[in-house]
Amino acid sequence: MDIDLARQLSVPGDTKLLLFVMDGLGGLPHPESGRTELESARTPNLDSLARESACGFTLPVAPGVTPGSGPGHLSLFGYDPLKFNIGRGALEAVGIDFDLRPQDVAARGNFCTVDGKGRVTDRRAGRITSERCGELCEELRKIPLEGAELFVEPVREHRFVFVLRGDGLSDAVADTDPQREGTEPLPPRATAPEGEATARLVARFVDEAQRVLAAKTPANTLLLRGFARRPDWPSMSDVFKLTPAAVAHYPMYRGLAKLVGMEALPAGPGLDDSIATVRENRDQFDYFFMHYKYTDTAGEDGDFERKVAKIEEVDAAIPSLLALKPDVLMVAGDHSTPAVLAAHSWHPVPFMMRAPWTRTDACDAFNEVALQTGSLGTFPAVEALPLALAHAGRLTKYGA
Amino acid sequence: MDIDLARQLSVPGDTKLLLFVMDGLGGLPHPESGRTELESARTPNLDSLARESACGFTLPVAPGVTPGSGPGHLSLFGYDPLKFNIGRGALEAVGIDFDLRPQDVAARGNFCTVDGKGRVTDRRAGRITSERCGELCEELRKIPLEGAELFVEPVREHRFVFVLRGDGLSDAVADTDPQREGTEPLPPRATAPEGEATARLVARFVDEAQRVLAAKTPANTLLLRGFARRPDWPSMSDVFKLTPAAVAHYPMYRGLAKLVGMEALPAGPGLDDSIATVRENRDQFDYFFMHYKYTDTAGEDGDFERKVAKIEEVDAAIPSLLALKPDVLMVAGDHSTPAVLAAHSWHPVPFMMRAPWTRTDACDAFNEVALQTGSLGTFPAVEALPLALAHAGRLTKYGA
Repeated sequence: MDIDLARQLSVPGDTKLLLFVMDGLGGLPHPESGRTELESARTPNLDSLARESACGFTLPVAPGVTPGSGPGHLSLFGYDPLKFNIGRGALEAVGIDFDLRPQDVAARGNFCTVDGKGRVTDRRAGRITSERCGELCEELRKIPLEGAELFVEPVREHRFVFVLRGDGLSDAVADTDPQREGTEPLPPRATAPEGEATARLVARFVDEAQRVLAAKTPANTLLLRGFARRPDWPSMSDVFKLTPAAVAHYPMYRGLAKLVGMEALPAGPGLDDSIATVRENRDQFDYFFMHYKYTDTAGEDGDFERKVAKIEEVDAAIPSLLALKPDVLMVAGDHSTPAVLAAHSWHPVPFMMRAPWTRTDACDAFNEVALQTGSLGTFPAVEALPLALAHAGRLTKYGA
Repeated sequence: MDIDLARQLSVPGDTKLLLFVMDGLGGLPHPESGRTELESARTPNLDSLARESACGFTLPVAPGVTPGSGPGHLSLFGYDPLKFNIGRGALEAVGIDFDLRPQDVAARGNFCTVDGKGRVTDRRAGRITSERCGELCEELRKIPLEGAELFVEPVREHRFVFVLRGDGLSDAVADTDPQREGTEPLPPRATAPEGEATARLVARFVDEAQRVLAAKTPANTLLLRGFARRPDWPSMSDVFKLTPAAVAHYPMYRGLAKLVGMEALPAGPGLDDSIATVRENRDQFDYFFMHYKYTDTAGEDGDFERKVAKIEEVDAAIPSLLALKPDVLMVAGDHSTPAVLAAHSWHPVPFMMRAPWTRTDACDAFNEVALQTGSLGTFPAVEALPLALAHAGRLTKYGA
C-alpha cells in the first residue's frame, strides 16, 4: 500500500500494535544437521504462538535483494525502502543519535592507513579502538572552516560521522573513498554545480585533516563517503494515524525510528528492560517497535550455536511479551542473517501475526520450513503494517 | 497486467469465459465450530470442481484493504481499482441504472434531520421509507434551476441521487455532508476555480430544498457528498477483445458492468434465471459475468447459517452452470464478507478456475483452509482475467 492510500484509509483507534523485530532473524540449514537456527532452537512459546497466528515470510525489498538495516526496518514500518531512500551519511549520523538537521550534510568517515606514496594500504586503519577514534575526532573537530560549522563524531573503531552545518550546503559531493586498497583517496568533487561550494569546504577539511593525522599511523588519513542530507519523510502519525514509540537499545534503530516520527523510549540492553519500557508506556502510545539485536550479531559472527541460544532467549520472554496484551502482535525480522553466511542475506524472513480475525492455517511451528504452510505466503514486508492495521480495525473501506 | 499490455496481447477467439461471482464469498471461522461458512456448508459440487480447478485466493485491492463493491468487481473485470477510480456520486447513479452522461455531475444524497439551530441530529432522517423518499424526490425535482437540468432519483430509505446536467459543469464541489451529527451541514463550496459555477447551482438547489423540506421532519433537510462525473474508461472489448455480457439482478452490478462496456442482460432474482439467460445468449457473447448477491447479504446481516445455506444453494446449481460448457469457468468473490464481522473485510477471497491446461494442485475442497494448498496462491484479483484469457487461448506471446 503506498503512503497516499495509507493516509487516506487509516483511522485512529484505541487498539494497540506491537512489532517485535528479531534482527537478522531468518537463517539457513546447518551443513551437518540440515536444520536452520530456528529449527534447531527449542522454542515452545514461539511455536505455540505460531499455531495461533497468521504465518508466512516477508520480503524486505524485493526477491534476491539483501537489505541493509535501514531498508529492512523501513519496510516493516510501512515505508517502501525503494521509495524512501536514506543516504549513507545521514543513516550513519542518525545511527549515533546525532541531531541531524534539515540543512546539514553528513558523510560516513573511515580512518585509514596510507603508505609513503599516499596509497591506501588499510581502509580500516587496523580497526583502531573506539577510544582512539574518539581522541582523533576531537582533534579534527578543531579544524577551522569558514562558512560552516563542523562536527566529527566517533562511531566505533575506525568509523566516524562527518557533518557540515550551514547555509547553502549541498550533498552533491562524490566519495573520497576509492573503495579499494592500493590507490590514493579521491579528491572531493562536486557531482553537480550546486555541490561545488560544499566540495571546496570538504577539500579544505581533508587537507587540514591530513596534516593533523600525518604522524598518527595507522590512522594517518581518512576517507569520506555517502554525502547525504536528512530525509524529510511523512511521519507514521500523519500516514497511519498511530502514536508510535521505539524501544531499541542500539542507536541505529532509534535513529531510524525517529526518522518516521517515533518517540525513542529509553531501552536497556536486555529483553526484560524493553518489555518493562513498553509496560510503563503502554497508555501513551498505540504502536510499539521493539528491537532485539543479538540474533543478528550472532549471525554476522557466523556463530550458529549462539544464534540458536539467542532465539531461545527470546522464546523464554514470549510469555512476558504476551502479557503486554497487544491487540496485534507481529514477530518479524528486518532481514535474514544466516550464520552459515555470516552476513545479511536476501532470503525471505520468518513472520507471524497474532491478531483478531486471522484465518486458520496449517503452520504449527516458527521456523523456515513450517512457515511455508502459513496463510500469508511470502509477501512484501511493506504490507505487514497495513495488514496489522486492518486486523486492529484501523483501516477504512476503499471505494463504495 | 496493465490495460496497455492487455490491449497489446489480447486477441479475439471462439472460446467462452464465465465469471461467476458469489458476492462477499470469503468468510472467517465461527467462534464455536472453528469452521468458516464455506467449511460448514455441504458443497459436494464445489469441492469436486475444486479438484479439477486451479485454486487460490484473490486480493481485490491490496493486503489489508477492505474493498467496496465497486473496486471488488472492477478488479475481477481486469481493471486495477487503484487506477480506475469511480466517484461516489457516479457509482450511486450507475447503481440505480441511471443513464449518467459524460457531461453530468452526480452526488450521493441523504435526507437528514436538523434541530431548531440547524444542527444535524440524524444523518439518516430515521431511515424514512423508500416510498417516502420517492415522494420527497418528486417534490425536489420541481425546483427550477437556471443553467442545468436537475434529476433527483430515490435510491432506498433516506438515500437519493442528485444529478445536474448541462454545459460547463464540474465535479470540483466539496461535500455538504459534515459526516457527523451535532454540526450544521456545510455550504457547497468549489474545491477548484472551475467548480465555482456548479457550486453556485448546488447552493441554489440546497436553499430551495431547505424551504421545500422545512416542515417534513424527520426529513427536514439534505446532505450531498461525492460529487463526481461518469468515468470514461476503455471497454473490455477494446482492451481484452471480448464481447462481454453481465447477468446481474441488482442494479449496482449491472451499472458497474456497463461502465466497462458489458451489455446488461435481463436477470431475474434466482440462479436458475441467470443460468437460463446465459444459455439463451451463449452464441452472442464470449464472456459472461454472473452475479449472485445473497452470500453477501447474509454475511452483512451477520447471519452465519443463512450464508451457509446460500452457499449450498449455489452448490446445487453448479451442475447447470457446468452444463453451459464454458471453456474457462472462474468461481470468485468480489471481497470477503465474514458473517462474524457482519461487514466487508480485507481477507483474501476464495477463487478457482476450471480451464484447459491448468496444473494439478493439492486442493480438494472449496474453502478457506483447503484453498491454501492451491497452485495459484494469493494473487491480485486484477490478474484473474488475464490468466483466464491465457487458458482460453486469447493472449499472444510477449516479445520475440
